[in-house]
Amino acid sequence: MTRFTVTYRITASDARQAFARAQGIAHEQTVEVPPDVVPQGYVRDEIVGRIEELGPEGDSVFRAAISYSPDSAGPDIAQLLNVVFGNSSIQKGIRVIHLDPGEEILRRHPGARFGVEGLQRLAGRPGSGLIAPVLKPQGIGAEELARIAYLCALGGADIVKEDHGLSDQRMAPFRPRVEAVVAALDRAEAETGRRPLYFATLPGPFERIEEAIAFAKAARVDGLLTMPGLFGFGLIARIARDEALAMPVMAHPSFLGSFVLPEDAGIAHGVMFGTIQRLAGSDISVFPNVGGRFGFSEAECRSIAAACLDPHGPGRPILPSPGGGMSVDRASDMRAMYGSDVVYLLGGSLLRSGEAIGEEIARMRRALDA
Amino acid sequence: MTRFTVTYRITASDARQAFARAQGIAHEQTVEVPPDVVPQGYVRDEIVGRIEELGPEGDSVFRAAISYSPDSAGPDIAQLLNVVFGNSSIQKGIRVIHLDPGEEILRRHPGARFGVEGLQRLAGRPGSGLIAPVLKPQGIGAEELARIAYLCALGGADIVKEDHGLSDQRMAPFRPRVEAVVAALDRAEAETGRRPLYFATLPGPFERIEEAIAFAKAARVDGLLTMPGLFGFGLIARIARDEALAMPVMAHPSFLGSFVLPEDAGIAHGVMFGTIQRLAGSDISVFPNVGGRFGFSEAECRSIAAACLDPHGPGRPILPSPGGGMSVDRASDMRAMYGSDVVYLLGGSLLRSGEAIGEEIARMRRALDA
Repeated sequence: MTRFTVTYRITASDARQAFARAQGIAHEQTVEVPPDVVPQGYVRDEIVGRIEELGPEGDSVFRAAISYSPDSAGPDIAQLLNVVFGNSSIQKGIRVIHLDPGEEILRRHPGARFGVEGLQRLAGRPGSGLIAPVLKPQGIGAEELARIAYLCALGGADIVKEDHGLSDQRMAPFRPRVEAVVAALDRAEAETGRRPLYFATLPGPFERIEEAIAFAKAARVDGLLTMPGLFGFGLIARIARDEALAMPVMAHPSFLGSFVLPEDAGIAHGVMFGTIQRLAGSDISVFPNVGGRFGFSEAECRSIAAACLDPHGPGRPILPSPGGGMSVDRASDMRAMYGSDVVYLLGGSLLRSGEAIGEEIARMRRALDA
Repeated sequence: MTRFTVTYRITASDARQAFARAQGIAHEQTVEVPPDVVPQGYVRDEIVGRIEELGPEGDSVFRAAISYSPDSAGPDIAQLLNVVFGNSSIQKGIRVIHLDPGEEILRRHPGARFGVEGLQRLAGRPGSGLIAPVLKPQGIGAEELARIAYLCALGGADIVKEDHGLSDQRMAPFRPRVEAVVAALDRAEAETGRRPLYFATLPGPFERIEEAIAFAKAARVDGLLTMPGLFGFGLIARIARDEALAMPVMAHPSFLGSFVLPEDAGIAHGVMFGTIQRLAGSDISVFPNVGGRFGFSEAECRSIAAACLDPHGPGRPILPSPGGGMSVDRASDMRAMYGSDVVYLLGGSLLRSGEAIGEEIARMRRALDA
């Protein structure tokens, strides 16, 4: 059974300490007992992580590739992540910089149902960047959100996506909101013959998520937005693996920032917003764009897009979706940077156009197609 | 409707920038649009976060208390956390250092079903520290784990807890494992008349969690261990709010370390492992103990215990549960530090005793009662 391999960047004063720390990780992430009490045989030989590679990366920084048995991860994505970084997340100076799932984990976690090609086909725009305006702000009513959706549809939006802060609050509860938006898109379609995909934000509580998924499907929602930082990556896998449901998943980075921000701990940008999203089954991975109000660098954003699109990555390539400070004026720069396999989120800046939202989206389309 | 208040520590060069950042958070966490497009009236007046207090905390560090409407958070714990720190988690130099839920959020999230008193009563040890050996390591079979449970029960353990790395792997699948452990505890009870509480680790995948909970209840498991970093805090609330189920919840810190480690970002130790756990409904909050292989300081551990036990905190006071490097030899030091409202996790070190695990637990009991 092919083992899966996690590469960690480890802070250590010298090679000896680096080896001790790598050994610590190999035990911590699996048996979680000291080496002297690990049972001989299968547990010691297969379950305990195996240091495959260890070398210096820089001043007091080492790189350790540790392989694990698929037995350790079992069938579930949460337990896979538990092995990758569960307890090690609590230790200083350990950062996950690469994850190679290997054949067996790939078999268990086959990835996105739709991916780049599937999504572009669903949106009727093969090989092209998709424009996804966001329905917001939180606090306005379902009918007002639906009106924005209608204007976006008239303007030629490819995806109409709900803000991740629209949950099931009394101002625009999930069910009436979804019904109002679907009705607005029906009207737009009747008028123009074209219809954007509609991604609704899946609300909690936990015990009503299944009902909410079923409701969304029955109401003709096209895709679901979820926040793995708050609901877990297992919810993404649950949606992606449901053949009868057959709905694409958009993952939002809310509550995941603390993993990527520290340089010497956490999880690298490309692994969190690329590799792990692909394994879980996300079709679209939202992340904060460079130059907006979030502090991601251009290199970090490029690493995310590369991990989403890497033809050798796990499962299907998926669509990176930069958002946060995205605007029509930046369209051609963004196109130069990200190319055509991308979902451009248009958020707050779009609302400045008032009734002219549609024209702004059409202008974005022209800029991308130029 | 009482607003809830989050206090952030913000990095800023001067008071002017601190104010701009605080205003940024107030918008980011709610409407997520620039101030100039926020609708007048209810959305601007109620939904947008309100800076209640802003002042210097140190060199280039400010403290901002921002209040939010319960309307913004809605009924679900995931959306509450989304307002507290969702997108702000992705911005540098913002750390949540306090969370005051206020009356309305407390009404929606009443907290732990059992808490300190309830758990001590269930364990038959009112006012006393509880000893909780851990069943491990991952990789051994269900019968071997059950045998350890049996020895722990004979030794007088108060809680027998499964390692968080025991999921539903083929070496010890969830159902046969649970059945074997329950049978072992039945046998110990028949022999001694005393029975520890048994906390089983709830496995994924997402779509089978309900089945697993029902199975655990039917099999006479006493409590459930879950990892909110991987499964979400909504799962804790789902268990805590289920009156018919009436099972206590133990929360494990796996995959949550990245939130607390950075000094200038993330979420403070006491908020993450105290306040938020209490709001979600955890009865026991596991965290890495000082002096073990994790790097938490004594002050950080004390802040967690204080937040768990604060009589003015949300819901019932809950049991802090330091683990990781805990051993019988440290019992009296630990008792001096944590007092009697605490669950002492005994992990890998216990396995060194082999057949004498029970004697070690009895020795721990004597040290705590001395």
